[in-house]
Amino acid sequence: MNSLTINTSSRSYPIYFERDFSALSKSIKLIDKNYTSYVIITDSNVQSLYVDIVTEEIKSLGEVLTVSFPAGEEHKNIQTISKFYEEMINFKADRNTLVIALGGGVTGDMAGFTAATYMRGVDFVQIPTSLLAQVDSSVGGKTGIDFNGYKNVVGAFYQPMFVFINVGTLRTLPFRELYAGMSEVVKHGFIKDKDYHNFLRDNVKGILDLDEELLIQMIQRSCEIKKSVVDEDEKEQGARALLNFGHTFGHSIERLMDFKLIHGECVAIGMHGGLTLSNQLGYLSDAELEESIQLIKAYKMPLTVKGLDKEAVYNELFHDKKTTSKRLVFALLRTIGDSFLNQDTIDEVTVKKCLDIIIEE
Amino acid sequence: MNSLTINTSSRSYPIYFERDFSALSKSIKLIDKNYTSYVIITDSNVQSLYVDIVTEEIKSLGEVLTVSFPAGEEHKNIQTISKFYEEMINFKADRNTLVIALGGGVTGDMAGFTAATYMRGVDFVQIPTSLLAQVDSSVGGKTGIDFNGYKNVVGAFYQPMFVFINVGTLRTLPFRELYAGMSEVVKHGFIKDKDYHNFLRDNVKGILDLDEELLIQMIQRSCEIKKSVVDEDEKEQGARALLNFGHTFGHSIERLMDFKLIHGECVAIGMHGGLTLSNQLGYLSDAELEESIQLIKAYKMPLTVKGLDKEAVYNELFHDKKTTSKRLVFALLRTIGDSFLNQDTIDEVTVKKCLDIIIEE
Repeated sequence: MNSLTINTSSRSYPIYFERDFSALSKSIKLIDKNYTSYVIITDSNVQSLYVDIVTEEIKSLGEVLTVSFPAGEEHKNIQTISKFYEEMINFKADRNTLVIALGGGVTGDMAGFTAATYMRGVDFVQIPTSLLAQVDSSVGGKTGIDFNGYKNVVGAFYQPMFVFINVGTLRTLPFRELYAGMSEVVKHGFIKDKDYHNFLRDNVKGILDLDEELLIQMIQRSCEIKKSVVDEDEKEQGARALLNFGHTFGHSIERLMDFKLIHGECVAIGMHGGLTLSNQLGYLSDAELEESIQLIKAYKMPLTVKGLDKEAVYNELFHDKKTTSKRLVFALLRTIGDSFLNQDTIDEVTVKKCLDIIIEE
Repeated sequence: MNSLTINTSSRSYPIYFERDFSALSKSIKLIDKNYTSYVIITDSNVQSLYVDIVTEEIKSLGEVLTVSFPAGEEHKNIQTISKFYEEMINFKADRNTLVIALGGGVTGDMAGFTAATYMRGVDFVQIPTSLLAQVDSSVGGKTGIDFNGYKNVVGAFYQPMFVFINVGTLRTLPFRELYAGMSEVVKHGFIKDKDYHNFLRDNVKGILDLDEELLIQMIQRSCEIKKSVVDEDEKEQGARALLNFGHTFGHSIERLMDFKLIHGECVAIGMHGGLTLSNQLGYLSDAELEESIQLIKAYKMPLTVKGLDKEAVYNELFHDKKTTSKRLVFALLRTIGDSFLNQDTIDEVTVKKCLDIIIEE
């Protein structure tokens, strides 16, 4: 059993790296608590693929309720959460109930927020089934929902009891979502680790062919990088903001596209913006800018977006929740593998030059 | 400045005991953070009494937004919270915003939950203006809302930066709410401190006359008792459940009366049930049962409720969120000042005998 331990100020928990679900009930039994019932929260897509097999694995441990919602970011809202609360109350879920988040990032965010707020907090575990969720949501304890079009503006920091990553689930992931998950993976190389960047550059084919050995190696390294950043800074005051590389532009695009692009695609486009900005401000060399762009392309991620108004994107940037006291702090690269938070004010002309490059007419 | 420090696993914070609001902005400046804006959350009653004076005290520190809701437990729901989120987003509240809970327990619970979940947590302070909130919500970090008639079934543990108790606000509190707050005060004597019980018994007149010196002494001691219980057990696994004395019956009555009785009244009636149960099971002596009942009466609190169906209350008991795996754990008294958690199953006949006494035909 490959595993990685994540330490947070409130709790330590393991991430398990597996090729199927056979070790799931064993993993639950390792938690020092006797759960009497289980609530699986999942979306309609993942439900039809994995709920039966997961239920089969855990049904000997206690009563199981499955709560599902229609797949899609547009359902990541307070209405869906209310439905979860309602079904859990009817099921008489209590503090001896374990919530199981089975699905992608949207499911993890919502199931985590539900667990964080039901009866002021019940235990939960994450079974991320998308690459994005495996490399991004496994570390950090972020949970949340969207509100009035604002992404994750409602949420809580809440840590799982464990994360169970079965890389086998990536075989059923739609290609678009697999490529989108790669945006976070590629980002981890950009902001922290040139060697990892090189590993990704040298293994494009094997990774896109879903070689399980390479996937476990890759996901584990991505989790380690995220862990190293989060360890420094659990509540996102400083270092953790480096993980927002590409997200400042990305979130604005995501909101203005009304969630028609998936998160990972917006981050890829946003990273293109962040790389360009790093270059424009004289940090990232032309050669490394080009090399970075080539890696995004190799993993089939988009670099630009069509049909957006530049002025609107510019204004939206200053409404992003990463804005500290109305001033915008961008994560930027000095070189591939070395990032920093830019505290200086960046003039409008420079930001708009970047928008010219990532927004097509 | 009288104060008391509360230590929790996540943070330490002070409770200040004051006779007016003049030390408020000084207290905010003592926090090691520069807030740029302030959101006062309050209900319609407290708004007309205290928002102007509180705003006057803090307006030199930054922009101030007041968000209010119609007074009453029936508004302690997800719709009201959604309205808060919306107004805060429009105000561009961010992580440099301080949320100020100004009001009674309902306001504190909702403002605390809003602070706990807005942008995954922003800082907040409590200014409890009711006696119940001063002695009950000041310690423990409980925040929450009701859902589908279930009290506090949605919420979070979240600690304030400080609690500011101005006992002067008790002069404007409706008598019914003042007496209701006394239920928690009296409970603290019952479960932990015979001397405090005697102090309450010997100062009925002074306390009901709102003598400020006595009130500060009383509230501070109640906070200390709650602190000693919570210190043992922050997340309500064990000792903290002693604070539920009277609440198991109380919550069921509160729900079935559809919140027509206020919380403190239900707790008083519930304590009557708990005292009777302690006596029935052979723990509390007849003499101490009588002495306890006399104290509840002296502070004008109700001992019984009319118009409820006993069978319905009995069934409701087993739907209470304090139910651990469907078994009911009652906090009971051995003597005045000495309580324990009863782990044994209590037979239906005994519980119904108690209901006969607290429910009038």
